[in-house]
Amino acid sequence: MAGNSIGKVLVLSTFGESHGACIGGVLDGYPAGVIIDHNHLQTELDRRRPGRSHLTSARQENDKVEFLSGIYKNKTLGSPIAFIVHNTDKKSSDYDNLKDLYRPSHSDYTYAFKYGHSGMPGGGRSSARETVARVVAGALAKQFLRKHNIFINGFVISIGNIVLDKKTNNIDWKYAEKSPVCCPDPEVSEKMIKYIERIMEEGDSTGGVVRCIIKGVACGLGEPVFDKLHADLGKAMLSINAVKGFEYGSGFDGAKMVGSEHNDTFGIEKDVIYTHTNYSGGIQGGISNGMDIYFNVAFKPTPTVKKEQTTINKKGQTKKFIAKGRHDPCVVPRAVPVVESMAALVIMDHFLRAD
Amino acid sequence: MAGNSIGKVLVLSTFGESHGACIGGVLDGYPAGVIIDHNHLQTELDRRRPGRSHLTSARQENDKVEFLSGIYKNKTLGSPIAFIVHNTDKKSSDYDNLKDLYRPSHSDYTYAFKYGHSGMPGGGRSSARETVARVVAGALAKQFLRKHNIFINGFVISIGNIVLDKKTNNIDWKYAEKSPVCCPDPEVSEKMIKYIERIMEEGDSTGGVVRCIIKGVACGLGEPVFDKLHADLGKAMLSINAVKGFEYGSGFDGAKMVGSEHNDTFGIEKDVIYTHTNYSGGIQGGISNGMDIYFNVAFKPTPTVKKEQTTINKKGQTKKFIAKGRHDPCVVPRAVPVVESMAALVIMDHFLRAD
Amino acid sequence: MAGNSIGKVLVLSTFGESHGACIGGVLDGYPAGVIIDHNHLQTELDRRRPGRSHLTSARQENDKVEFLSGIYKNKTLGSPIAFIVHNTDKKSSDYDNLKDLYRPSHSDYTYAFKYGHSGMPGGGRSSARETVARVVAGALAKQFLRKHNIFINGFVISIGNIVLDKKTNNIDWKYAEKSPVCCPDPEVSEKMIKYIERIMEEGDSTGGVVRCIIKGVACGLGEPVFDKLHADLGKAMLSINAVKGFEYGSGFDGAKMVGSEHNDTFGIEKDVIYTHTNYSGGIQGGISNGMDIYFNVAFKPTPTVKKEQTTINKKGQTKKFIAKGRHDPCVVPRAVPVVESMAALVIMDHFLRAD
Amino acid sequence: MAGNSIGKVLVLSTFGESHGACIGGVLDGYPAGVIIDHNHLQTELDRRRPGRSHLTSARQENDKVEFLSGIYKNKTLGSPIAFIVHNTDKKSSDYDNLKDLYRPSHSDYTYAFKYGHSGMPGGGRSSARETVARVVAGALAKQFLRKHNIFINGFVISIGNIVLDKKTNNIDWKYAEKSPVCCPDPEVSEKMIKYIERIMEEGDSTGGVVRCIIKGVACGLGEPVFDKLHADLGKAMLSINAVKGFEYGSGFDGAKMVGSEHNDTFGIEKDVIYTHTNYSGGIQGGISNGMDIYFNVAFKPTPTVKKEQTTINKKGQTKKFIAKGRHDPCVVPRAVPVVESMAALVIMDHFLRAD
Repeated sequence: MAGNSIGKVLVLSTFGESHGACIGGVLDGYPAGVIIDHNHLQTELDRRRPGRSHLTSARQENDKVEFLSGIYKNKTLGSPIAFIVHNTDKKSSDYDNLKDLYRPSHSDYTYAFKYGHSGMPGGGRSSARETVARVVAGALAKQFLRKHNIFINGFVISIGNIVLDKKTNNIDWKYAEKSPVCCPDPEVSEKMIKYIERIMEEGDSTGGVVRCIIKGVACGLGEPVFDKLHADLGKAMLSINAVKGFEYGSGFDGAKMVGSEHNDTFGIEKDVIYTHTNYSGGIQGGISNGMDIYFNVAFKPTPTVKKEQTTINKKGQTKKFIAKGRHDPCVVPRAVPVVESMAALVIMDHFLRAD
Repeated sequence: MAGNSIGKVLVLSTFGESHGACIGGVLDGYPAGVIIDHNHLQTELDRRRPGRSHLTSARQENDKVEFLSGIYKNKTLGSPIAFIVHNTDKKSSDYDNLKDLYRPSHSDYTYAFKYGHSGMPGGGRSSARETVARVVAGALAKQFLRKHNIFINGFVISIGNIVLDKKTNNIDWKYAEKSPVCCPDPEVSEKMIKYIERIMEEGDSTGGVVRCIIKGVACGLGEPVFDKLHADLGKAMLSINAVKGFEYGSGFDGAKMVGSEHNDTFGIEKDVIYTHTNYSGGIQGGISNGMDIYFNVAFKPTPTVKKEQTTINKKGQTKKFIAKGRHDPCVVPRAVPVVESMAALVIMDHFLRAD
Repeated sequence: MAGNSIGKVLVLSTFGESHGACIGGVLDGYPAGVIIDHNHLQTELDRRRPGRSHLTSARQENDKVEFLSGIYKNKTLGSPIAFIVHNTDKKSSDYDNLKDLYRPSHSDYTYAFKYGHSGMPGGGRSSARETVARVVAGALAKQFLRKHNIFINGFVISIGNIVLDKKTNNIDWKYAEKSPVCCPDPEVSEKMIKYIERIMEEGDSTGGVVRCIIKGVACGLGEPVFDKLHADLGKAMLSINAVKGFEYGSGFDGAKMVGSEHNDTFGIEKDVIYTHTNYSGGIQGGISNGMDIYFNVAFKPTPTVKKEQTTINKKGQTKKFIAKGRHDPCVVPRAVPVVESMAALVIMDHFLRAD
Repeated sequence: MAGNSIGKVLVLSTFGESHGACIGGVLDGYPAGVIIDHNHLQTELDRRRPGRSHLTSARQENDKVEFLSGIYKNKTLGSPIAFIVHNTDKKSSDYDNLKDLYRPSHSDYTYAFKYGHSGMPGGGRSSARETVARVVAGALAKQFLRKHNIFINGFVISIGNIVLDKKTNNIDWKYAEKSPVCCPDPEVSEKMIKYIERIMEEGDSTGGVVRCIIKGVACGLGEPVFDKLHADLGKAMLSINAVKGFEYGSGFDGAKMVGSEHNDTFGIEKDVIYTHTNYSGGIQGGISNGMDIYFNVAFKPTPTVKKEQTTINKKGQTKKFIAKGRHDPCVVPRAVPVVESMAALVIMDHFLRAD
């Protein structure tokens, strides 16, 4: 039983392989009558695509979405919204020397084992290119949510060991958007850039952590006991390529605290209930409580490095190889819109579920 | 749309409120012909229930499972297995002074808002007592999995700031089982006990981290791109009460590493493919690769503390209160069988999905 | 992958075997705050149970429902409503002489093949006793729907060849309720009773057709293109034991008509849109149009007859046998509340889906 | 919550509007390694498309499928198979005079009410053109099933009052395929053609009944108690445009029989268990028993007739109109491949579920 769909009322199903004709998706359950903002959609795609700064892969995907259904005269019909983004810059030849190898920490081996074939070049379905469909659907979800005053923003809080002080509250979103590493702090941003440049020179790669903040969610979203809001957010984040961990609110640090410190005491002002602190990350008992929702997502270093590595091939022979191809030394900045998109899909799904 | 079921081929639905007649569940999709090991099941329930050491709540639930269907002459029929565990020791009076309060970092407020009522005393559906149903179902899943040589074990790696060296490989499972804090290292175990005793005296509470290791899973479990094995494990863990974070393999630490160090290179011995390191945590591209699967789950400190706190009541008035009731200063050791149970349900679900 | 649940937002899962401890169910997705009418519920159970007239099985099930969860102080909590009805009158000995036989047109053979065991005596899960859970859940759905002025009523339109004129519009519901064959016409009712008495004497059985009318459904329920309202009603009906066919509106007769006759032309009165005829059965394009919804459900004759039959046993030997046990010569009248219940569950599910 | 997907392990989601760019679908859960037979696929599309005989709509859709994903070097990858069929012959102008009318027994009114818009011209999503996606997916399912010796064939058993003797067992499939009305009997076929020609001249339309026979299904498919094989077949058929009824095996006629006549007694020959009669239609207790599965599907007359009709428009005004557009006087022959396709999808889904 396959697993290419996510969501219960708003359901995204994605399809397409990295070196096939296109990456696409079907978004079902999206309400009728919403006007599509194509500029916003393109901006989101551009945030994700490679080739925008010297720190990312040289692969140039001039990503444009083509809608196949569900929209008429620029308005949603309430029927499934199908869309594709063509794969225009496929260089399968980069993969020729790899096609019989199980690359370390890639999915070559597990995919070959599970599906009984070597799949398409370039990772096929397991390539991060699949996330382009998530960004299209996420942009549509964001457009719905902002009409309900819900806003979702992510930024990078760490690259390797360069860490932005987690306590930061006043995010300079404009700077984050300009920064090639999506970090809102100029000083830390600069350090991150330097670090990635060094890693790049060494032919190596690095990981990092993305934080996402969701503002404007009213009390009441989330469906205990299994579809708790943070559980569905967690699953959505963990489904993104290269993600190794998820924590919300106080997260792993919360495990070190004592209860009297960690408890978010309630206050009330002008009939609005709030909490004085927000270690709960805006979610209590699996249900949003009206405060900001925030969480962190850890990304591993990309497995493609331009250093010699040893692995085995399909015949079980030990082989040395050096990756060619075009790959990012650090995917974390490009992952920010993907994180936001998956968050938007989960929040909109629960918004519609609670309706 | 409610969320009281988990799994796609093996589906657990739980029901029951902490101060109602019982907690129960229905496990559908469990194959016919499996002989039930009642001793093992009772042992699992006993590992979860409070009152076993001086470190836990004095609430005495002599938990016994009663099967209502799906089993005949001690063998599963292939039909839904319904079961209940009676709630025998309900002291609602403990909650009398709280019934109009929104306790900090509890779900009182969000539940009242979402369901339009104050629910039952003792947290109703949001109480950790609900996890008893997960342990029953998890025990059945473990019994199925062990026939396929899959074994799942958890232990505590941290309580507050007392941390077991994460690198530990040779787990002394017997000691962990004996230890009142489920920690396999006698020295660290002792420190944890001391720390909880101190916290208890102070009327406070503490959190911690549970690690879980799954041995014997062959290559091939997990369904990209959304139902990746670690994504479903993550959701299942995050659905457990008080959980704040999930990481697998290298986890958040992996985000600090470089690719050349983090990559798990493949080797082969007697036709068996393995990786020299296991930062992948036994999962690559969302599919198990045959290595041990391991992950960490962070628990926040329980919100019930015997210190004076300020909050608001349903009328919006600010109130001071001190919790009475019977609560654990640290639920982390008791959470170990719950973590294992949810892992067993996810692994068995994917085992049947991949079949 | 098992199939013991039905519905998407309102989900009924049933469990229990006919000769096990109980038949039960879990109804998830039922809104909070609904007051339960226990008298109505018991009336519904009594309509279904055998032993009420000389025409039905002598099996005496004094069916009482016991709620395990989801209700507090007689009001629904919004959490899963679990319930059981105990099996009090199990006479397994009736089945002793059958236990190795594959009874003709029963599910003995297919169940034995599929589940690899002979199951429990009395049909286990395939027994019509399972429908008691549907009636409990259906009664709860009816109680919700009547608050929204939706009413569901069934009656018998044929037993064997005794057929009530299908065009009948003015149903005498009170008479139908009194009639032991649930037929609203005294004359036809009398003929049906006579026919069943004769069939009974002959040790044979007969089938029949139940019609169901749903009043008060506003325009808008149903989810094309697959979850059309009549498609979900059809599936629900076909899931009832012994059902062989389903038709709505003009049904099979509609296939013989010409379009100009079959078309339901629209009219309007005081801003209310209606159709002059209703061959559409209240559903157009899979969506309710505000007119009465009506459909027919065909039941086969029960396979248990007190005549000598030939079949094979598990060893593949040809055997002659005569059924003992307690069985109805005609289950159709008792099926009326089951048909209504399944209709109520489908309508409420779509009511909540469209919300 | 929308309803554009069907199936549990093999899931078909369709998208597209009749006058949009294309009709398409995503088929998820289809196993890897199956070689696609494009000729067979095109034949299936050709069987469904209009314009093949003088009895059908003049709309010329030169339907060609374009695969977007899931297939590489003509073999399935195990990933979602997305496909589209372009809409090449859209004449929206035919609908200009209708665009403000609620056409009788069409879905104009219910769609406008539910989705809050008038949708696209030509019925949008509710058009029978949507079934082209079902035929593509159904062809892929048939290709899988025939490898397992399962064959699905439909034919027309009635048009209006012209009825083929239901008992017919020896179907002349070749003749049925040649017959413009898909009827295997030359004499009856001729009568049907004459009848449709007369109806056509009158500007009217007619309905009919399709029978489908499935050969080669082994014992064991079907998932009681809700996902019984015939219940899922019934839902799939009822989801097809214009369908009013479904019956399997003895169907509505079975309701008139007595049990001793209706029971299918078992026999055994060379270790193969069979039944002497097959009133059960190959399904007992919701599970296939190894005999032929057969069922009937009733289609209403198409609502578009070239006679003057009265209806109301969106302003609630009464209007007279005569349809222009291009429509079939009888869609039943063209529905045969759609019925077969939906059957193939259900059987393959249950085949994979039972695996």
